[in-house]
Amino acid sequence: MPLGEFELIARFFDRGPAREALLGVGDDCALLAPPDAHCVTAVSTDLLIGGRHFFPDADPESVGHKSLAVNLSDLAAMGARPRAFTLALALPEVDEAWLGGFCTGLFAIADRYGCELVGGDTTRGPLTICITVFGDVPPEAALRRDAAQPDDDLWVSGTLGAAALAVHDRNEGRPRGAGDRARMRLDRPEPRVALGLSLRHVARAAIDLSDGLAGDLGHILDRSRVGAEIDWPAVPVDASLDGLLDALRRRLALGGGDDYELLFSAASENRSAIEAIGRRLDLPLARIGRIVAGEGLRLRDARGRPLLIEAHGFDHFA
Amino acid sequence: MPLGEFELIARFFDRGPAREALLGVGDDCALLAPPDAHCVTAVSTDLLIGGRHFFPDADPESVGHKSLAVNLSDLAAMGARPRAFTLALALPEVDEAWLGGFCTGLFAIADRYGCELVGGDTTRGPLTICITVFGDVPPEAALRRDAAQPDDDLWVSGTLGAAALAVHDRNEGRPRGAGDRARMRLDRPEPRVALGLSLRHVARAAIDLSDGLAGDLGHILDRSRVGAEIDWPAVPVDASLDGLLDALRRRLALGGGDDYELLFSAASENRSAIEAIGRRLDLPLARIGRIVAGEGLRLRDARGRPLLIEAHGFDHFA
Repeated sequence: MPLGEFELIARFFDRGPAREALLGVGDDCALLAPPDAHCVTAVSTDLLIGGRHFFPDADPESVGHKSLAVNLSDLAAMGARPRAFTLALALPEVDEAWLGGFCTGLFAIADRYGCELVGGDTTRGPLTICITVFGDVPPEAALRRDAAQPDDDLWVSGTLGAAALAVHDRNEGRPRGAGDRARMRLDRPEPRVALGLSLRHVARAAIDLSDGLAGDLGHILDRSRVGAEIDWPAVPVDASLDGLLDALRRRLALGGGDDYELLFSAASENRSAIEAIGRRLDLPLARIGRIVAGEGLRLRDARGRPLLIEAHGFDHFA
Repeated sequence: MPLGEFELIARFFDRGPAREALLGVGDDCALLAPPDAHCVTAVSTDLLIGGRHFFPDADPESVGHKSLAVNLSDLAAMGARPRAFTLALALPEVDEAWLGGFCTGLFAIADRYGCELVGGDTTRGPLTICITVFGDVPPEAALRRDAAQPDDDLWVSGTLGAAALAVHDRNEGRPRGAGDRARMRLDRPEPRVALGLSLRHVARAAIDLSDGLAGDLGHILDRSRVGAEIDWPAVPVDASLDGLLDALRRRLALGGGDDYELLFSAASENRSAIEAIGRRLDLPLARIGRIVAGEGLRLRDARGRPLLIEAHGFDHFA
């Protein structure tokens, strides 16, 4: 006999007495203690739909990992410390093997970042995962999209384009030698939580790269009412894109989504502090351009000549 | 040309500077100030799926209303004051007329209860609405499911069974004279927020009736490790069920879902205080039975004889 809703919750999602929460899974509401002193609560929510945000045959452990990772990435982009999350889950049927894998991936990353499941909802329906995360951040240290200023440096963490390459290869039906690395980046993004915390009082504006650098940088520019210049040779294109035509590399690295790296602006006097953060976290941080007065995004080649940006970020309704 | 994702957010969901939140719609995270002094944050999340939680042809204004109402009902059942919510929305296509109606219903109830939209996510997919709500409650006043004690009175607000009748009639393809009233109860439930706040330090355990009295009371009994007796003649069956066979009335009133009334336990010395709350709120509050030592739920007729409970609450995977 298949599991009922409440047995399902008890078996997969009730992990005993709450630690971070005053009251966790199993009541009408969870109860969260106030944030740490001088902090406010950062809240973000993401909706993932099977067949749209992940391939229908994606392994459930990766789906569990990624569902929370993309939310933790939003906390990272705010400079917030993860505390807790809720999970709303629609399943076409109770598939215990799938749920077991999903929970393994979900709770592994949850435990690693100290982010506790405090409540949720389960129902039958097309495979849908909605997670809402809560984190702490001192309000004056929050890395807001509207805080970039002209002459700020523009930085990005890690490397770009690998996840977009995995989607590209899959769509073209073309397995590639570099496929495993790219597929890992797509399926198992690592949220840059430690970087976000380190950038408090060091960076000004920040955003996480979910829809592609060009589109996501556009949100910072819109909200900060500034423009930007990017030096294409300085963009840290992932090695899995080596050997591709330059136009395709640009499109994947600047327009592809799912990188979950942090893009941030910072005053130029913080360059050495930022380089030290990168060394401490063993995470490459590349200075890729600058914020300028005015509006719009310009891309330049090694000789400073303008390059076309074909990428405009991912729009779910475009 | 259809609206893109970001125009959609700007047009329908960005209502200007945040009031309750320090930072609202449009950044990686919303920022929420700490709860009121001596309070903690109550959090609840609900996932509604088109064709499952509401009829596919339901009018969008009602869908907007109900999406937030069912979440506010969870806050009410905890005795929490609504503050803010996030909205994750999947739409099969951008239907501006549908979105306009949805927002009218959503923001009308949001404004009425002082609950501000602070963030969200929009994507393409099967019609799905996931709302997470945040409220304030002093932790020692929270109406928890595990707080019922033997000899507590059992109370329920309003009337029961009308929403279940509307579903029953719809499933049987039978329009009825009482249909409008029953359909209103199904489509436009009113969360008992003022009652929940009034019951702080008056009631012990509470739950909102979303899956039917029998099943929802079962959650209080399980978590409080007690049993209960209900006097069937004392149950406030909605007048729209008048004239139905008693077995059907029992099934709809005790097993039907979607009432969104509050079921609560309270010490018997609080009877007159509770009656005064009902008069002040102009909301009928019926004393329908009592908590007993032991376990299980017994239903009795007017002469104290046992009645069969056919209803076991709604289980999405049963």
